[in-house]
Amino acid sequence: MDLLIQNCMLDGVRNSIGITGNRITTISPDLKPVAADVIDASGKAVIPGLLNGHTHAAMTLFRGYGDDMALHDWLNNKIWPIEAKITEDDVYWGTKLACLEMIKSGTTFFNDMYWQWDGVARAVDEMGLRASLAGVIIDLFDPVKAKEQMTQNAFLFDRSKSYSDRIHFCLGPHAIYTVSAESLRWVKDFADANDLLIHTHLSESEKEVRDCLDQHGMRPVDYLESIGFLGPKLSIAHAIWLDDAEIAKLKEHGVGVLTNPCANMKLATGRFPYSRVRAGGVRIGIGTDGPGSNNNLDMFEDMKFLALAEKVNTGDPTAAPAQEVFDCATTNTAEIFNIDAGRIDVGALADIVLIDLQQVVFSPGHNLVSDLVYAANGSVVDTVICDGKVLMQDRVVDGEDEIIARGREVAQDLMSR
Amino acid sequence: MDLLIQNCMLDGVRNSIGITGNRITTISPDLKPVAADVIDASGKAVIPGLLNGHTHAAMTLFRGYGDDMALHDWLNNKIWPIEAKITEDDVYWGTKLACLEMIKSGTTFFNDMYWQWDGVARAVDEMGLRASLAGVIIDLFDPVKAKEQMTQNAFLFDRSKSYSDRIHFCLGPHAIYTVSAESLRWVKDFADANDLLIHTHLSESEKEVRDCLDQHGMRPVDYLESIGFLGPKLSIAHAIWLDDAEIAKLKEHGVGVLTNPCANMKLATGRFPYSRVRAGGVRIGIGTDGPGSNNNLDMFEDMKFLALAEKVNTGDPTAAPAQEVFDCATTNTAEIFNIDAGRIDVGALADIVLIDLQQVVFSPGHNLVSDLVYAANGSVVDTVICDGKVLMQDRVVDGEDEIIARGREVAQDLMSR
Repeated sequence: MDLLIQNCMLDGVRNSIGITGNRITTISPDLKPVAADVIDASGKAVIPGLLNGHTHAAMTLFRGYGDDMALHDWLNNKIWPIEAKITEDDVYWGTKLACLEMIKSGTTFFNDMYWQWDGVARAVDEMGLRASLAGVIIDLFDPVKAKEQMTQNAFLFDRSKSYSDRIHFCLGPHAIYTVSAESLRWVKDFADANDLLIHTHLSESEKEVRDCLDQHGMRPVDYLESIGFLGPKLSIAHAIWLDDAEIAKLKEHGVGVLTNPCANMKLATGRFPYSRVRAGGVRIGIGTDGPGSNNNLDMFEDMKFLALAEKVNTGDPTAAPAQEVFDCATTNTAEIFNIDAGRIDVGALADIVLIDLQQVVFSPGHNLVSDLVYAANGSVVDTVICDGKVLMQDRVVDGEDEIIARGREVAQDLMSR
Repeated sequence: MDLLIQNCMLDGVRNSIGITGNRITTISPDLKPVAADVIDASGKAVIPGLLNGHTHAAMTLFRGYGDDMALHDWLNNKIWPIEAKITEDDVYWGTKLACLEMIKSGTTFFNDMYWQWDGVARAVDEMGLRASLAGVIIDLFDPVKAKEQMTQNAFLFDRSKSYSDRIHFCLGPHAIYTVSAESLRWVKDFADANDLLIHTHLSESEKEVRDCLDQHGMRPVDYLESIGFLGPKLSIAHAIWLDDAEIAKLKEHGVGVLTNPCANMKLATGRFPYSRVRAGGVRIGIGTDGPGSNNNLDMFEDMKFLALAEKVNTGDPTAAPAQEVFDCATTNTAEIFNIDAGRIDVGALADIVLIDLQQVVFSPGHNLVSDLVYAANGSVVDTVICDGKVLMQDRVVDGEDEIIARGREVAQDLMSR
């Protein structure tokens, strides 16, 4: 045993957890620290590290840079002009800042899609988190650009092998309105040939559906099915504007869905039909989306937004109950990304969070899961362990002051270029 | 000068704030600490203490006790059976726990409505917060009960004078479906005679409106106008189901509205028409509602919920922008309750919060108000001053461990009675 978490509350009972290498190897109340580091977890509850199923981490640099704007105004006049100037070093610091924020709020895995793949991978590797990192593909229906991006992604996949096992390369065709059918078919073939996951945005806005109907005479899911793109390796973000036939197809092909409650409300793109998608048997995970449109990476907050939004949307306060929503942020997202985590079990990856039960929101403490989803926020996280390594203890992360300062400097410099 | 807050960021500029007694008496970058306590506020921003316009503080005891339930099931089978057994001591500890949570999340004033008025007042007085505390009136259309409650409220108003100036007695007829017109008329007369505010729940559910139409042939606001109840001393909580004519009447009579974004979504009671009410010229404040239906007292969270809900409800991401929503939680609620706070100005009450800008959500820091509304939560609050007294510094509140422990004990005991 390398690390012993002693006297934590696990499912309401005092217990201890032994970690060897990067796995949970024993769970028993009587574990003794033999040649192992020990964390005294008295007064703390253990939960799985949360999994953020969709974000653009480096967009921390754009937090608060243009809020309360219409989507196209925001993209055209704020985000895209700046993104055109962004360097690998900017992305590296923006991603480190995001990793710091995720660690501080109890997230141990995230699924990212952003430019400057190496900058992202380097930051995540150093910060100790686990991630699925998509190489972005946007060809804008230009065959020359498409060819370039295929080459680039094949190259990035090769490069990804030089990073730690915590870094998973994945293919990230941006959306059906920015990527040609030819590139999507290449993505599918390349993913099948190399056993890679695929992640894309789908049916985020009503306009996207209308445009797809105009252009292809089909709704987005039907269009992707028609080009053979659906399958269990695919996960889609947003998935707001789905009809029942599309939901049935997502289920049939084993496609996972990542909902982004805060971002969808903030950009007013629509209401994710949680209960209908769940009733259709589709696996649902949660993502924060990028901090430019949320504006944070706190999965606790997105759990609450998902639950409360579904209750008012359906008029049913029993909809999206706390345990279901907690499962979305843990087991479901883990399953969608083939991560052997999201649960505290012998054999699972040691991606673990300790919750400080002395925080005021846990008094009186009638129901921990309810308190986590409805009352808590990321600040209740005391300790974060990922891949068996302690990334935060007593809310202290190595080097955090420098990362916060560099985030400020890099963003300021970027905006003034 | 009694207290000097040195080197804080105020509206983006380094400044210092001098406090004498319970008022802000000077604001100048060059203040020197002459015979005053000093708080070094380097790296901190100063904002007004937040004002929570509607809650039932002692319901902290019910946090997480019955979530994901239909309203009537929750009330009939969970809340009311327990409330029937609640003692003044329970309410005292529940309110202390709530005050602790409010201090921890930057609230310096709240408007409460709950049983066992003395238990509430004693807790608030000890904890150092400012509050408008309603004596609850529910006569259930029984003239004997009505008479009792009138006597009781006149008595409580007298008693309220024995508490500190921070405690404001107010009249709290619960709702039009639990209080007779006779009692409402008595409330209005008593309030006018004694210069007291009145606070009630109104138009929280569609059923309430339908029942009012059935019983009185009028919608709720029209009904209250017909009995002469509307006026500038009145504030109403929820106010979800309003037509345009009702909004015009609220404006005409100077009635303030307190919206409860989280609770309305969690109980699925409906969508507050923020933009319509605001366009109608009605003053809008924010409340958390009780922690039994939120499930916390974090005004930062309710600000974000209000803004994001209005954006998706209207389909307009420019709706309810950050500054407007921040004003709802500060200046607007202060004006509704006649509190000379909600702003950092010479002459205003010294109800002040220091924000720790070293928290990760303030990097890069493009826009402080946006970061407060969209990225932060109550954990960014470092220091809280109310009525010129320091209630929290470096996130430490006197006696917090005992309050958290007693909250647990009292709730457990109450549930097992």
